[in-house]
Amino acid sequence: MNNLNTPVKLFLTDVDGCLTDGGLYYAADGNELKRFCVYDGMGMACLQKAGIPCGIITSETIDVVRIRARKLSLRYLYMGVGRVIDRTPALRFAPATAEPVELQPMTKREAAQHICDELGITLADVCYVGDDINDLDLLRAVGHPCCPSTARPEVRAVPGIRILRTPGGQGAIRELTDDILASL
Amino acid sequence: MNNLNTPVKLFLTDVDGCLTDGGLYYAADGNELKRFCVYDGMGMACLQKAGIPCGIITSETIDVVRIRARKLSLRYLYMGVGRVIDRTPALRFAPATAEPVELQPMTKREAAQHICDELGITLADVCYVGDDINDLDLLRAVGHPCCPSTARPEVRAVPGIRILRTPGGQGAIRELTDDILASL
Amino acid sequence: MNNLNTPVKLFLTDVDGCLTDGGLYYAADGNELKRFCVYDGMGMACLQKAGIPCGIITSETIDVVRIRARKLSLRYLYMGVGRVIDRTPALRFAPATAEPVELQPMTKREAAQHICDELGITLADVCYVGDDINDLDLLRAVGHPCCPSTARPEVRAVPGIRILRTPGGQGAIRELTDDILASL
Amino acid sequence: MNNLNTPVKLFLTDVDGCLTDGGLYYAADGNELKRFCVYDGMGMACLQKAGIPCGIITSETIDVVRIRARKLSLRYLYMGVGRVIDRTPALRFAPATAEPVELQPMTKREAAQHICDELGITLADVCYVGDDINDLDLLRAVGHPCCPSTARPEVRAVPGIRILRTPGGQGAIRELTDDILASL
Repeated sequence: MNNLNTPVKLFLTDVDGCLTDGGLYYAADGNELKRFCVYDGMGMACLQKAGIPCGIITSETIDVVRIRARKLSLRYLYMGVGRVIDRTPALRFAPATAEPVELQPMTKREAAQHICDELGITLADVCYVGDDINDLDLLRAVGHPCCPSTARPEVRAVPGIRILRTPGGQGAIRELTDDILASL
Repeated sequence: MNNLNTPVKLFLTDVDGCLTDGGLYYAADGNELKRFCVYDGMGMACLQKAGIPCGIITSETIDVVRIRARKLSLRYLYMGVGRVIDRTPALRFAPATAEPVELQPMTKREAAQHICDELGITLADVCYVGDDINDLDLLRAVGHPCCPSTARPEVRAVPGIRILRTPGGQGAIRELTDDILASL
Repeated sequence: MNNLNTPVKLFLTDVDGCLTDGGLYYAADGNELKRFCVYDGMGMACLQKAGIPCGIITSETIDVVRIRARKLSLRYLYMGVGRVIDRTPALRFAPATAEPVELQPMTKREAAQHICDELGITLADVCYVGDDINDLDLLRAVGHPCCPSTARPEVRAVPGIRILRTPGGQGAIRELTDDILASL
Repeated sequence: MNNLNTPVKLFLTDVDGCLTDGGLYYAADGNELKRFCVYDGMGMACLQKAGIPCGIITSETIDVVRIRARKLSLRYLYMGVGRVIDRTPALRFAPATAEPVELQPMTKREAAQHICDELGITLADVCYVGDDINDLDLLRAVGHPCCPSTARPEVRAVPGIRILRTPGGQGAIRELTDDILASL
């Protein structure tokens, strides 16, 4: 369901293809990089200042995501959830600056529900941004499903989804957080 | 030949210009990076889950490719084949997570044939994605030759080649794997 | 105010989204990168050669900015000013190749005023390039406010602002420095 | 002069904006990166195989350029020539895989003349690709001046210059080397 009349009480987003343009930079020395967008960071910082907690839910396990989430002082970070190739314990950081707690392997939807239970809200109150097939389950469950303009076709076809005008990694999250802030 | 009625039994791709946009990042400290696309990785992971082995055949010798192939648990990786500037032993990883075996210097076509022999199939069963002149020989030999929209003119002119709508490194491989999966 | 008849006596710019395209590269090993544009560097070097001091005013605190400012021998560098998430001491480098002096936390406008006082000029003599909401206060105060074509909507709406034709990180600064040089 | 009837006997190119898109990646740990294009490398390798020596002439002094030139086994590399901000000794590598020899500070034109003297040819036999104002002097002196589509306006206005269809770092050099090879 996509109930635009309910206010957003929790803002969650995937990483690759949403906070980034889907690019994965691998280095010969084993290092790995991602390219984030300064506009998205400012957007989530402003959203949290306005009282709406923000979080990242990702299948990624590498520290790049943790470093970015820490820099933005995000309220929630779940890593290693909903993995396609293998099945690993989930890591929960709440806030992102805290030490991780290891949880049982879980889907992205289960991770979002985990946060909702803590906040005493439901998935109908959640805005989630996803871009690929492993986001479909959660996107269909939240009240405010969104995706960048560059999301996979299956994601753009989710009933009631808001397709942002901006490509992933180019400020798609900011386009959304600006609108949420304007609606407060 | 390009027999669209035969099913694809093996999926092989080049790296630079296919899994990447052709960008080579060199660092002053000697490190080297490539930018892959998360969508392509998801595509090959799904293809392997559906029972079609995937592999990379590249003239590159640097570890960046090995790291990416490992992360995706690809079934095959041949490095250092079909080199233009020098002629080096080929390195075979099968699967990509295994230790390398050194083989005699070989062309990309010989590397693909090597895998076919092991699987008991022929080049007619192979889908190969290439983008530059050192891919021409193999592209002309496989049953399902493909290239990104950004491939060199000589490659796009291969008889029967499928020119993908997507540029290299932006999800060209995913466009193809989605179609192969839909045809199963 | 935007008095095009007054000559520019000081050229100041923000970093992310102005000297870059807003991309923030995070590495798993904790390293962080930014992508600058060679054309902007040449532009500021020529401007300084022509006698107009150049400087960077940024909320960033990482060494990437200092390294770039040093390479260009910029006259001024203020880091850690006008921060949104936290409030830190400002670091002043004058010139950028000098050791930093720690100042009280300050806004971008206060940092620009600090330089003006030293040079015996006013904000009306300053050309400043900014792209996001934390630049609005300074953009509204200087005589020559400018922004890249890719600046946030609130910035592009500043009265009298010059919206450059070039996106941030693609030579927007150079477009401007060329025009300033041509007007001398 | 731009005598299209004379064959090219030496191929020289600038780096930033020609072999790259002008992007300069700075890392917080002091590292620096450039993004090259695999198509340009293949083009210069083929040109050298066909008997036309290739070289790089750059004001840059960082090792990134040396690493790239070595990988391609270029015949000539001159670093630190024609600098705008300071004036440093030139470093000559011939071939690029050899140890450097320190030369007096020199302009790009002097560096190209240096190579011509060694080869017993004149600047009329040289194809040079440049993109910014510090390339103008050499571009006006060679027989085959060229620039990427993204070169600065002053460069695109050089009389007789060939403006390539391709942007710098996206295969502009390859567009040119393919044409030179086709004309042999």
